[in-house]
Amino acid sequence: MGKRTHSGHLTSEYVEEDVLLKGWVQKRRDLGGLIFVDLRDRSGIVQVVFNPDNNKEALEVAEKLRSEFVIEVKGTVKKRDEATVNPKMKTGEIEVVAHDVTILNRSKALPIQIEDDTDATEEVRLKYRYLDLRRQEMQETMKLRHEISQSFRRYLGHHGFYEMETPMLTKSTPEGARDYLVPSRVHPGEFYALPQSPQLFKQLLMVSGYERYFQITRCFRDEDLRADRQPEFTQLDIETSFMDQEEIMDLTEEMLQQVVKDVKDVEIPTPFPRMTYDEAMERYGSDKPDTRFGLELVNVNDVVKNSGFNVFKSAVESGGKVSAINVKGAADQFSRKDIDKLTEAVKVYGAKGLAWIKVDQGSFTGPIAKFFEQDEVEALSNKLDTEDQDLLLFVADKTNVVADSLGALRLKLGKELDIIDESKLNFLWVTDWPLFEYDEDENRYHAAHHPFTMPQLTDIDRIEDDPANVKAQAYDVVLNGYELGGGSLRIYEKDLQAKMLKALGFTEEEANEQFGFLLEALEFGAPPHGGIALGLDRTVMILAGKTNLRDTILFPKTASASDLLTDAPSQVSSNQLDELNLKLNKKSAE
Amino acid sequence: MGKRTHSGHLTSEYVEEDVLLKGWVQKRRDLGGLIFVDLRDRSGIVQVVFNPDNNKEALEVAEKLRSEFVIEVKGTVKKRDEATVNPKMKTGEIEVVAHDVTILNRSKALPIQIEDDTDATEEVRLKYRYLDLRRQEMQETMKLRHEISQSFRRYLGHHGFYEMETPMLTKSTPEGARDYLVPSRVHPGEFYALPQSPQLFKQLLMVSGYERYFQITRCFRDEDLRADRQPEFTQLDIETSFMDQEEIMDLTEEMLQQVVKDVKDVEIPTPFPRMTYDEAMERYGSDKPDTRFGLELVNVNDVVKNSGFNVFKSAVESGGKVSAINVKGAADQFSRKDIDKLTEAVKVYGAKGLAWIKVDQGSFTGPIAKFFEQDEVEALSNKLDTEDQDLLLFVADKTNVVADSLGALRLKLGKELDIIDESKLNFLWVTDWPLFEYDEDENRYHAAHHPFTMPQLTDIDRIEDDPANVKAQAYDVVLNGYELGGGSLRIYEKDLQAKMLKALGFTEEEANEQFGFLLEALEFGAPPHGGIALGLDRTVMILAGKTNLRDTILFPKTASASDLLTDAPSQVSSNQLDELNLKLNKKSAE
Repeated sequence: MGKRTHSGHLTSEYVEEDVLLKGWVQKRRDLGGLIFVDLRDRSGIVQVVFNPDNNKEALEVAEKLRSEFVIEVKGTVKKRDEATVNPKMKTGEIEVVAHDVTILNRSKALPIQIEDDTDATEEVRLKYRYLDLRRQEMQETMKLRHEISQSFRRYLGHHGFYEMETPMLTKSTPEGARDYLVPSRVHPGEFYALPQSPQLFKQLLMVSGYERYFQITRCFRDEDLRADRQPEFTQLDIETSFMDQEEIMDLTEEMLQQVVKDVKDVEIPTPFPRMTYDEAMERYGSDKPDTRFGLELVNVNDVVKNSGFNVFKSAVESGGKVSAINVKGAADQFSRKDIDKLTEAVKVYGAKGLAWIKVDQGSFTGPIAKFFEQDEVEALSNKLDTEDQDLLLFVADKTNVVADSLGALRLKLGKELDIIDESKLNFLWVTDWPLFEYDEDENRYHAAHHPFTMPQLTDIDRIEDDPANVKAQAYDVVLNGYELGGGSLRIYEKDLQAKMLKALGFTEEEANEQFGFLLEALEFGAPPHGGIALGLDRTVMILAGKTNLRDTILFPKTASASDLLTDAPSQVSSNQLDELNLKLNKKSAE
Repeated sequence: MGKRTHSGHLTSEYVEEDVLLKGWVQKRRDLGGLIFVDLRDRSGIVQVVFNPDNNKEALEVAEKLRSEFVIEVKGTVKKRDEATVNPKMKTGEIEVVAHDVTILNRSKALPIQIEDDTDATEEVRLKYRYLDLRRQEMQETMKLRHEISQSFRRYLGHHGFYEMETPMLTKSTPEGARDYLVPSRVHPGEFYALPQSPQLFKQLLMVSGYERYFQITRCFRDEDLRADRQPEFTQLDIETSFMDQEEIMDLTEEMLQQVVKDVKDVEIPTPFPRMTYDEAMERYGSDKPDTRFGLELVNVNDVVKNSGFNVFKSAVESGGKVSAINVKGAADQFSRKDIDKLTEAVKVYGAKGLAWIKVDQGSFTGPIAKFFEQDEVEALSNKLDTEDQDLLLFVADKTNVVADSLGALRLKLGKELDIIDESKLNFLWVTDWPLFEYDEDENRYHAAHHPFTMPQLTDIDRIEDDPANVKAQAYDVVLNGYELGGGSLRIYEKDLQAKMLKALGFTEEEANEQFGFLLEALEFGAPPHGGIALGLDRTVMILAGKTNLRDTILFPKTASASDLLTDAPSQVSSNQLDELNLKLNKKSAE
């Protein structure tokens, strides 16, 4: 019977060769007594012709073929007539004249079409995911995902990293996001947790002397989902001993450069630009700035602090901030109504309002223009680099509200004005993160990253007295406004780790119960270590040019963490619950 | 400061070079005013010398060094005196004369020593796993594990397989082993299950047209543990479309050949020997024969069926079987007491007794010898190929008891007689498995492999009427008596899959509720497909020459599925349970 040939590989080089093809019927057309079938397999599509002169029986079988039937075809590759050459198809110069055809499996009419532009709802696509995944677009994304993973692995393997597998059934810890729990049958009333990340295990591997570890691994967080979150997600996890922050950043840059080269054949420049966290918040209102476009935020505190416009003045006086975005030359494009819409958009982020000024031949117009003296107009014009017809948008509020609202407004304007160059891959480091963040609800400090992050050495003394001003030896890598990954050096001395846990509100007893094994491990010759973790799903999403994380995952969950294909989660038998020593609450049993 | 050099790489080529080393103090010796430190990092060990002529301060720091301190050393590589060259060490021709040393971290006295032959109990080793993992033996195994994984990935990547990630939060199905469950917070009273294998998802990927899939992935089974089982284990999972059994077996052989070549530099011959399941059970009493030694089981039914020894005669008459092992030349080595011990060993497997005969210059001796006529003696001698001083061991019982007990006895004798060549890697295919196995407790048939296994085509009609005699298109790959992996062709037609589920006792409603999504998928152009899954932990174990699966896993669980290092599983807060709408049973709450 011979070996199978792949449809997409057939070119004029194969002319007069006999081939055996297996695949799916993409399309059937009947024309003048002949039947034409576009036969699709993973490699591509080729046209197969059935004609009565060649084999009448094959033609009869071909008459039964419908879309998505699985068939096996034996035939001969022939050059197409000049007139029927299809330059759009890779295989368009040839066709396969069929001698024989076998139907391997049939197909009912499909609930979604196997076409690039599907108009099926996402719900239908997820329910029939195995059909959605037949679409070329999805096939290409999944192939890219494979290539990206293999490229990461190749790079890290060449650089002496071992891929090492940490456990999935781990201990639940209260710090961080909510754990997914797994009840133990053998230990009644006890639970494992699925890992939010392999953080502690990878640190222990450094204590074990492995020096260079990586893993592409699943992580789990039971959080309410946003569009770019999934309950389970994949992380490229890297940890090293004896490397400092610069070395880890260099390695990450070189690795990402190699991966982008491998899968996109694009040379991205290194070193990546760098920005401190404070600068990112000030200039972009974001800890993951999209630097593909301007519209930067400009702090105008010093200009407006004595302004006659009381909103600005009092914001500065009360320790807040006034920042502005200059939308160049856009004065005409935005009506009052348009600006009202922008105002609504910033209110979502807690801003009380959006002030605006239009620049008209050197002077300011708009409702607040009258509050500014000529020297203030000049100073603002200078600071915001104004020209005729610029639109200036201001938010005056608490520092974080200014950042959040103008940061979001900047992204919105960037999209609406269509000034984002989608072909760019703008990598960026954000450094010098705060070690702690204050939780107003709980009236306590949380670890901004995680409790094992190393403070900057000059700040160690402030941990107890002035946590708000302690910076971390932490670094995020940002791509096109997405947080691709984050890393840090880790605490490797027991006393410092204990001090850190204390600052986070742990009693000594709690610290020992939760993290005793780590504290103990740090007493047995733990080396200085650090690492980074990159989100694989997000990396694939950006490099595939997608905007929906679900399009990068084979079988994703919905926003309510359901799998519409298999109907998970689902009820289980009372016997299963009994074995786990569990009962459902009344609420859920009802 | 310069770049770090790795201890294990230093040879005479480096003489007179200045180096920067970082690592652990393996050993410190003080000798004639000098201090010698064996400095260890992942690459190996090098001797560092501190002497007062060179740097007095460094010598003073060196006096503080203890085992497992983490240090940084600057020094110069020097040739050792001829007299002090250590040919056992890779770095034994040189030493590093230290100019400077910094203590990066200290270490308390260790609960276990970092030496190849540890006398620590496994409990202590698991509690201080991060120290156990420092031992060279463990480091080498984990490195090998990495290399094996990368070699599999390389091979499969080169052969057009995509590594694709299937979900971990999946639907619980009653068929197969016990699931680990994960309660859903968003859907009260509902649960996910952790996958026992990606079986259905990989089949769906074939329906999606990916044609060649693989994944190195974690699988979970909540079963009572044996020495060679873990609650979570790693599987190399492979699925292909349009390939038949022979092609999948060829591919697997070539892949294993490549991996063994890559990691052991050993050329294993292909094709692997093959044996049907029936033959394996008959000749080895095992479905995973260790073919590194003889002691095969020989069925002597036709010789003893009319024997005067009633135990033999009635075993055959009642549909059972009499088989024997000829322990060549061992008559003298086994006293009655020794044979009594062997008898105890077979009784564990349900055998009522172990009959024996010793061959003494052509005639039979022992308690049952008198029952055999001369022609029977000759026929047995012929069949068992006896020579002087052979010891013949017989079990007469039901077929499965004979297989289990003599199969176990064979392995026991192989070990005790030390006739197993540990240097061999004996791969073997076991084919033609039964599709069903009868469960006497439940009085029903189970799927011997899983319910998606394709029957042999000639047996399809027997599924309903004669399930016991239906063979599967299934194949196991065995290495040195371990099941390395198993595969099969899968059912790809809906009607056959429905028929199979019916034969397993599913009502139509149950079949649809549990596997409706699969049945439906098979109606939309599912291609013929099949695959294989290999146990990665076991592959590493055998190639590393280990016998304990836990020695191949970084952080394994104990026999009661506990992690002694982190103390998982553990109790969780009532708040966590409330969020999951769960209550503990009284039994466990007590």
